[in-house]
This record gives sequence, C-alpha cells and structure tokens, in this order.
Amino acid sequence: MSRQINLASRPSGWPTADNFDLVEVAPPALQEGQALVRNLFMSVDPYMRGRMNDVKSYVPPFRLGEPLDGGAIGEVVESRAPGLAEGDLVLHGLGWREQAVLEASRARKVERIEGVSPSAYLGVLGMPGLTAYAGLLDVASFKEGDAVFVSGAAGAVGSLVGQIAKLKGASLVVGSAGSDEKVDHLHEIGFDAAFNYRNGPVAEQLRKAAPGGIDVYFDNVGADHLEAAIGSLNTGGRVAMCGAIAVYNATEPAPAPRNLFLAVGKRLTLRGFIVGDHSARMPDMIAEVGGWLREGRITASETVVDGLENAPAAFLGLLRGENTGKMIVRL
Amino acid sequence: MSRQINLASRPSGWPTADNFDLVEVAPPALQEGQALVRNLFMSVDPYMRGRMNDVKSYVPPFRLGEPLDGGAIGEVVESRAPGLAEGDLVLHGLGWREQAVLEASRARKVERIEGVSPSAYLGVLGMPGLTAYAGLLDVASFKEGDAVFVSGAAGAVGSLVGQIAKLKGASLVVGSAGSDEKVDHLHEIGFDAAFNYRNGPVAEQLRKAAPGGIDVYFDNVGADHLEAAIGSLNTGGRVAMCGAIAVYNATEPAPAPRNLFLAVGKRLTLRGFIVGDHSARMPDMIAEVGGWLREGRITASETVVDGLENAPAAFLGLLRGENTGKMIVRL
Repeated sequence: MSRQINLASRPSGWPTADNFDLVEVAPPALQEGQALVRNLFMSVDPYMRGRMNDVKSYVPPFRLGEPLDGGAIGEVVESRAPGLAEGDLVLHGLGWREQAVLEASRARKVERIEGVSPSAYLGVLGMPGLTAYAGLLDVASFKEGDAVFVSGAAGAVGSLVGQIAKLKGASLVVGSAGSDEKVDHLHEIGFDAAFNYRNGPVAEQLRKAAPGGIDVYFDNVGADHLEAAIGSLNTGGRVAMCGAIAVYNATEPAPAPRNLFLAVGKRLTLRGFIVGDHSARMPDMIAEVGGWLREGRITASETVVDGLENAPAAFLGLLRGENTGKMIVRL
Repeated sequence: MSRQINLASRPSGWPTADNFDLVEVAPPALQEGQALVRNLFMSVDPYMRGRMNDVKSYVPPFRLGEPLDGGAIGEVVESRAPGLAEGDLVLHGLGWREQAVLEASRARKVERIEGVSPSAYLGVLGMPGLTAYAGLLDVASFKEGDAVFVSGAAGAVGSLVGQIAKLKGASLVVGSAGSDEKVDHLHEIGFDAAFNYRNGPVAEQLRKAAPGGIDVYFDNVGADHLEAAIGSLNTGGRVAMCGAIAVYNATEPAPAPRNLFLAVGKRLTLRGFIVGDHSARMPDMIAEVGGWLREGRITASETVVDGLENAPAAFLGLLRGENTGKMIVRL
C-alpha cells in the first residue's frame, strides 16, 4: 500500500488542512514500459497554490478527489521499462505520494553526486535552480558589474539568484526576507546586504542598502517590493518578474506599483517569465551550477520536513515563508 | 524684433496662462557660423510638461525667465554659416520664438516635399513619427499578424502607430480616444476598431473590440488603459510604454495596474522608452514612412493653431487632448 495526498476541496484565500486528504491506495500493477518508484523527496512550490484554483493558467488545475502532483525524486524498486533498473535515481512529476508508477518517458534518470543529497535535484539543480539561472541571465539580461536586488531572497529561487549573481561578478547583491534569521542566512551565503522587510518600508531599506541604485530586480514578491525596486532602478534597468507570492492568496486585487510610469523615463524593461519556457537552458545550468556545487562555492539551502502526512503543513509553511532555501518533504 | 515665450513660473498640477510670458526681444547679431531663421511652425509636445518641473529627468528642465524650446521648422533669412543659404528649410530645437539664431551644427537642412507641408517634419517625419516607428517595431517587437492596441490613438504618435501597424500587416488595430469625433477620425484613417474611453470602462470596450486578445499594446496613457491592456494581452504580449499623459499633471500617485502580476503567467514584456535613444532609426523611418506619405498611403493628421501668442493655449489644449493628430503652431 502507498499513501498519497488528494485535493479534498478548493481553497478560497489561504488553504487550510481541510483542503487536503491523506488516503491509502494500492499502486496499480506494472505495465510494460513502466517502473515503480519509491519517492525519497518531494517538492512543495508556490506555483501549486495557483493550481488549486479552478482557473485556466499556464499549468492545468489540480482535480478534486485526485492526488496533487509536482516534482519528486525517487528510487526505482521494480521496473518493466528498458533503461530503468532497480536502484536508479529518477526525477519526475508525481510527487505528493509515497510510491509512483511511471512511464519511462516521464522519468529522468539522474546521477548520484558524492556528498550531495538527491533532494538537490528538486532545488539547486532542479526547477528553482533553472528559474534563478534563466531568470537572472536570460530574462533580466544580467551582466558583470550589475547591482542586483532580489526579493524573497531566502527562498529556494532567491537564495540562488543572489549567489549566481555574485559568482558572475555582480557589483552588489541585496536581498530582502521576512525575518532577522533569514537576513543572517543571506549574509552567510554571501549577499552584500540584506534587510527584513517587516522592519520598515521596503523603499527606504532598499535605498539604504543600494545608495547607487540597482540595475536588475528579480521579483518574487510583487506589491511594495516591485514599487520600491522601480524607484531604485537605474536607467536601462531590468526586472525579471518571477512570481508575486504577495498576491497568490489574495482575494482582492493587490496593491500595484504606483510609480510604474517611471519605466518610461528610466527605459526600464519588465518581463514576466515561466521556467517551463526555458528548459533548453537546463544543461547549461546543470553544468555551471553543478560545478559550483561540487567545488563548494554555492550553498544549497534547504528546509526539510519529514513525512508525507506533513506535506500540507510544509506547503502552508512555504506560503507563509517559514522556509529558508528550498522547502523539501522527505518521505 | 522677434517675439518669444518665456517660462514665467513653474506650474503645480495643470499649467495656466500665468506660467507663460510673451516677450519681445531683438535677435542678437549673427556670428560667423550662425544663421537667422524665421520659424514657420513649432511643435508642442506632452514631454514639455515634465520640463516645466524643476526636476532631473531625461531632458533638463526649462529655466525660469528664459524662453521655452522645442522642435521647430523655419526658413533661413540670413546666413553666415557655410552650407546654409537664404531660403533653406531647417529643422531645429529652438521653437517658442518667431526668429531663432542657430549654430549651423544645431540645424538640420531638410527637403521641401511636393504637396507636403513643412510641418510634417514636426510630426509624421519627425519625432512623433520616429516614436511611433521605433516604439512599435523595435520596442514592442511588432510582427506581421499581431493584434495591436494603441491608446491616445488620435494623437500625433498614436495615429501613426495604428497606421504603421496596418501597413505592416497587423491582424487587427484598435485605438482609444477621448471623443466620438476622434473615434470617427480613427475609422477614417484605417483603424479596424476604435472606442471613446469616456463611454465606458476601458477593459470592457477593449475586450469587445478585440475579443481574441491583443499581442502588442502601445501605451500613451497609463492608468486604466494599461490595466485593461494587461488583461487583454495574449501570452508573450509586449507593451511599449511611451508616455503616461494621465499622470503628467497629477499631484498624487496615479492608479497603477492592479493586475500587473498577470505578466508572469502571460510572459509579458513591458518596456519604457525614450525616442532620443532611437535616433539611429531616423533614416529608416524617413525612407519608409516618407515613401508611404508620397504615395498617399498614410495620413498625417494635424491640428493647427495660428500665432505664437496662442502657443500656450495650444500646449494646454494638447494636454487636455483637444488635438487630433499632431498639434502644430503656425507662426
């Protein structure tokens, strides 16, 4: 028997425990071309909140009474698929369950890296890593010498954006986060400046941290952070709009940047992006970031929660910003 | 003697007649390398409002007690400059005066075009033409088949954006304007659809005019127009942010697009731009748009006001949107 988490009901505003159902099911018998995988780690990500609504978006909504899904890494325990053998480590999209039956084409075999947890494939070497890498380098057109501000900087993506910017020659890397502990963490992983956005107006704290202005803003938050960034951006500045966690659970329109018209005189570029459009950059990211990881030059921050039964709590904690680095559930 | 308009005081909010002074001066004696020009037409443009404030921007502010300046076209009446002869038509930056003494390097000699008023060099073949051309083609990366929405569409820039888009193969061109007369004018010059934004919510009228959504939005207005456009933009849509006439005279922050976070899922790109950065495209624009003009395939809409003494009124009328096409003062 295997346990999985179903979507019991659709949340309005903040999700609650009632929206999730922990159920026990028997995995179906293996067909030719399939493998049975025991999941080791699963990912909870902010974009999953959007999939809980019954609205068309860039990924289809979760269905009521069916298991949620999302990134997971597991070990093959039985295989009827050529190319997949017992003990292989595979990255796939059937998280939120202890065991998964996978078509071979839906599983990507990955290498075990000495001294690196397989959960890295859900974070620094996975979707968050690619989001940071492609968002900073391609969407925001980062170049050496740029001053960079990243919001939600202690999160899975933000912590990598700041570190990649430093490794690529940023003149200044500033991060914002929601607690003093997270700010300390940002200093530890090499940010030049960091502030707790709950300690005062973002615009003021950003101006103090980057008195010469910023050239790139990597936006994970929206709202007041975006407005502050627009105020501090230098001429020709670029914004990669990655997410707006401030509005995911909002039931009414969020505050918008009232100074957006400054984009004209400052010749700013704001670009929204979805990591799925940038998968062609995955090999570059794995090569470059994987190299830094092996050399110990990049920190893969993680917050690990144990047990499938705690996955909804981990997800809610993620939305509340309780994680430092990638939020991971160990199964 | 020559008359000129000085900045008497800096407006707060909407300018009034008191902010301007009509004064009579004797033009200085010509130095070697200079020419005396009798201005035929001068331009009033929305960006001049910003220059009336004492703030650093992409162009320096006007100075109190000194003449305003801006685009003008005139005829050389006396020359001590090699390359400029009596009767030559020159485009230059010393408007707001009947006569101007110009260094030869500050004047661009232009051709008289059969059947085309010299004022075209202040509109369709001048800065507004280049703004429309570079903004649509380079900033918004317009491509054949795109559906285009332009706000302030009856203005100097907007009326050209729509016509250029049609001539370049847009699948749909929609314009908004502030009166039913202007809407009629937009239909006359070839817009597929047009609406009066005072007749109802912009978002609703835009959805009706472009039920399949839009790919490009050329923003001259900001505020509710930008919000409506973001709502109607298709995936991969692009916004050229050219100006925000809705906020130029605002003394408090303007309403911002509350749906800006949609830029993430829709992968939108919003880019502010200043025509001055695109002067390298002037020859392309003159060649292409000038060709359409000679062939009668593009309409150079103009609203002409007579007399320097009426220039402040023309400028205020422009800010109130009383012009259709380029607002021109004939001297």
